Amino acid sequence: MSVESGRVRKARGGGREARRALRENAKVEAAPYIQRKIPYTEILGEEALVTIENNADTILKEIGIEFRDDQEVLDLWKDAGADVQGERVRFEKGMLREILKTAPSEFTQHARNPDRNVVIGGGNTVFAPVYGPPFVRNLDEGRRYGTIEDFNNFVKLAYMSPYLHHSGGTVCEPVDLPVNKRHFDMVYSHMRYSDKPFMGSVTASERAEDTVEMCKVLFGAEFVDQNAVTINLINANSPMTFDDTMLGALKVYARNNQACIVTPFIISGAMGPVSPAGTLAQALAEGMAGTALTQLIRPGAPVVFGLFSSSMSMLSGAPTFGTPEPTMVIAAATQLVRRLGIPLRSGGSLCTSKEPDAQAAYESAQSIWPVVMCGVNFALHSAGWLEGGLVSGYEKFIMDADQLGMMQKISQGIDMSEEGQAMDAIREVGPGMHYLGCEHTKRNFETAFYPSTVANYDSFEQWEAEGSLDAEQRANKIYKKMLNDYEAPAIDPATDEAILAYIAKRKEGFPDSNV
Amino acid sequence: MSVESGRVRKARGGGREARRALRENAKVEAAPYIQRKIPYTEILGEEALVTIENNADTILKEIGIEFRDDQEVLDLWKDAGADVQGERVRFEKGMLREILKTAPSEFTQHARNPDRNVVIGGGNTVFAPVYGPPFVRNLDEGRRYGTIEDFNNFVKLAYMSPYLHHSGGTVCEPVDLPVNKRHFDMVYSHMRYSDKPFMGSVTASERAEDTVEMCKVLFGAEFVDQNAVTINLINANSPMTFDDTMLGALKVYARNNQACIVTPFIISGAMGPVSPAGTLAQALAEGMAGTALTQLIRPGAPVVFGLFSSSMSMLSGAPTFGTPEPTMVIAAATQLVRRLGIPLRSGGSLCTSKEPDAQAAYESAQSIWPVVMCGVNFALHSAGWLEGGLVSGYEKFIMDADQLGMMQKISQGIDMSEEGQAMDAIREVGPGMHYLGCEHTKRNFETAFYPSTVANYDSFEQWEAEGSLDAEQRANKIYKKMLNDYEAPAIDPATDEAILAYIAKRKEGFPDSNV
Repeated sequence: MSVESGRVRKARGGGREARRALRENAKVEAAPYIQRKIPYTEILGEEALVTIENNADTILKEIGIEFRDDQEVLDLWKDAGADVQGERVRFEKGMLREILKTAPSEFTQHARNPDRNVVIGGGNTVFAPVYGPPFVRNLDEGRRYGTIEDFNNFVKLAYMSPYLHHSGGTVCEPVDLPVNKRHFDMVYSHMRYSDKPFMGSVTASERAEDTVEMCKVLFGAEFVDQNAVTINLINANSPMTFDDTMLGALKVYARNNQACIVTPFIISGAMGPVSPAGTLAQALAEGMAGTALTQLIRPGAPVVFGLFSSSMSMLSGAPTFGTPEPTMVIAAATQLVRRLGIPLRSGGSLCTSKEPDAQAAYESAQSIWPVVMCGVNFALHSAGWLEGGLVSGYEKFIMDADQLGMMQKISQGIDMSEEGQAMDAIREVGPGMHYLGCEHTKRNFETAFYPSTVANYDSFEQWEAEGSLDAEQRANKIYKKMLNDYEAPAIDPATDEAILAYIAKRKEGFPDSNV
Repeated sequence: MSVESGRVRKARGGGREARRALRENAKVEAAPYIQRKIPYTEILGEEALVTIENNADTILKEIGIEFRDDQEVLDLWKDAGADVQGERVRFEKGMLREILKTAPSEFTQHARNPDRNVVIGGGNTVFAPVYGPPFVRNLDEGRRYGTIEDFNNFVKLAYMSPYLHHSGGTVCEPVDLPVNKRHFDMVYSHMRYSDKPFMGSVTASERAEDTVEMCKVLFGAEFVDQNAVTINLINANSPMTFDDTMLGALKVYARNNQACIVTPFIISGAMGPVSPAGTLAQALAEGMAGTALTQLIRPGAPVVFGLFSSSMSMLSGAPTFGTPEPTMVIAAATQLVRRLGIPLRSGGSLCTSKEPDAQAAYESAQSIWPVVMCGVNFALHSAGWLEGGLVSGYEKFIMDADQLGMMQKISQGIDMSEEGQAMDAIREVGPGMHYLGCEHTKRNFETAFYPSTVANYDSFEQWEAEGSLDAEQRANKIYKKMLNDYEAPAIDPATDEAILAYIAKRKEGFPDSNV
């Protein structure tokens, strides 16, 4: 049973009428994913790119990549012609690029509301919320462990935020639920409380299987086999290692034609060299091996090159974000991965700050501009990230989402139409006069300037009279109002019941566990 | 008497020995101005650039520019072949570009410490502090009017901040001094409390004359006539108008071979159309006319194309900063002005926020990345700007200066040397291990990552134990320590006395006035 068959005169199979009805039903404003209209910002020249590519090839051939505790994967590599010694796999130059030729340069990830489908790859950028924090933070309560209620809240906020194109995955860890069962509630939350595309569970291969099964209920089994309806985060154990947990999930998703993001996870100084060029060569080697593996499992399966890049505080050992070195790594990675011909994922609005203060904002801005200007295709952690990824922040989510709208507007470039050129306005107004009342202004003022939801533009006196609220205090009011105003997108009750029935049956099967 | 002759064995005329002695005397760390090593970020294609250039030519030819209350300027234009009708001056296509051929594409602005000289133009970027606010703000006192003590403090902070390459101009208005005399104290402050290059007074032609005379005392009359020792902010009264105050100062500086920044000052919706393409055409027309005028006064005089671009809140009427439209305008302007062949000035770390919160930081980051990535040559307002330019913020100054260091590091691109490639580290460490103790890390960790002065990278527990200070609170401590540690750069006592004697004599000449 497909979601598209839901609620609407029993129109089965996702017909045109059903889609229109669902569209009309959608009450929240949503911007489509970014289809850029501006050139890419680049920081490396041809010679530097070739040097890094050659270094990656050297790493792959001389050092190799370890695939741990997974004989099936080692056999796949052996059959493909790689040099397999124990768990170490080495690759001749050109081999992985050849294998990757079957990977699509871009693909559609389907949402249950087809208007929310996103195209990942090419000149497109998709913003997804923060992923993974065990803690949440808001102004009223400070920092505490996340719950499934928080999880649902972040799904709802992403659903209501026009510039979040994606519902994300583990928007926070619902620590109140047992580890071995919380994936059901998380996947269900995305399915039920949003109609945007989402991410599946990767923490064990059977949880990946559950995700796929739940998607089959929602989208129909045949549709799932032929289309990406989930995208899934597979981290490498950098340096140059993949473990069996991640490989298990990767195999499930690739086999089911679901998108994998294979991500070198590099905190420079710990999991990679302290230099950007070294980090890039290692990341390119790891990412090429991991993404190519999906093509051995199912040629043509959608796959995304991931890159998580951070510096390290040499004083505290903490990962640092929004600093110049990761900015340069991400910028260069967009160039390298475009040459590889597959989509690139990276963060996001990353920061190290413990609270949504100026540090958080500077760091997040320093993280998000290269994403958009250099052309990252899938930007995880685009809203809500705090404290190096330990915390999902409510107010931070609202502030970041506002910035995403600004970056989306920049990605569309300057309107060079006749109306954009505004020569009639310049002629009408003339020297020494003002544009406030001219015809062109009257025609355009409502849409001319990006309307920030968080920024305060009042006079000092008015701002002071209204309590001198800072950005965090204003964002606090905004997220509460959004949650208060939230209305769930419609879903076919029978589909909903079927998903819940699947979950109930599976949960019965085994006792709670926190592993 | 030259500053270079000061203090050092009476070595006259700026000899090698004198320079070395001054260098050794300099106790504060300073980064040289940015000489970029990365490509320019561009947002417009060739066709769009030509369209905007043609529109600017149309404005210049059909509408023209008004030069008000200045017959000398109108006569200069008539002699140069422009069509002068009353105060309206119209230009044939190509005329201004022809006149601008005598303007240098880059020039050196000299500082009294030659190590602090900056080259303005080409692939260089110079960061200068905030200019013009009547108010100051700090965490302890909030917002209040600025004084000469505040002015001196900001000069000292800029002197001590390695990534501020310039001492700036009106770092805040010293409202405690009479309007007609405060320029003496401001120029003296830059000369005495810093050894970085600075800006002169532009609020009346006789104040510009005073600036030049004081420079002659400091640098020597002949040196001043042959070299730029000041750079001076001449704002247009947009749209398409220059007034006699600004023209008066422009004439004084250009005649004395001092650099003028001729700046279309456009809040879109008020002084320009609400669209970026319209704003750009108008700005290009105004800026070409204003910069070309300097070449009629003294061919070869250094001149900079300025651009102040802001959107307008259609609710409050306030100028807004750090929004997408000005980002696009500045990015496009770098392309247009590079084609014109003269340097470009713009802001800076601009924001609308009343305090240094997340709004201020997001807005400032959105303002400064295009400056560096797109290649603005002179970035005024790079540190300390708050509340749309009404306030110079102490804590904001410290935060911004930290960000400038990050952008400067990015401007230098990725180190592609063998050490930067770090292949020895990757070979040494191998799969599954870590880089913390490897030789490459040991050799490089001290300089590998940009050391933020403001960001806190401690664990949550430690940060909480130490009082949960936010970025503003930390910056508050930093600026106070800097002012406490400040030591004035050496100056020849005779030169200092001569400057003070000039000021004393001139101040005697006329009574206090607040006009």
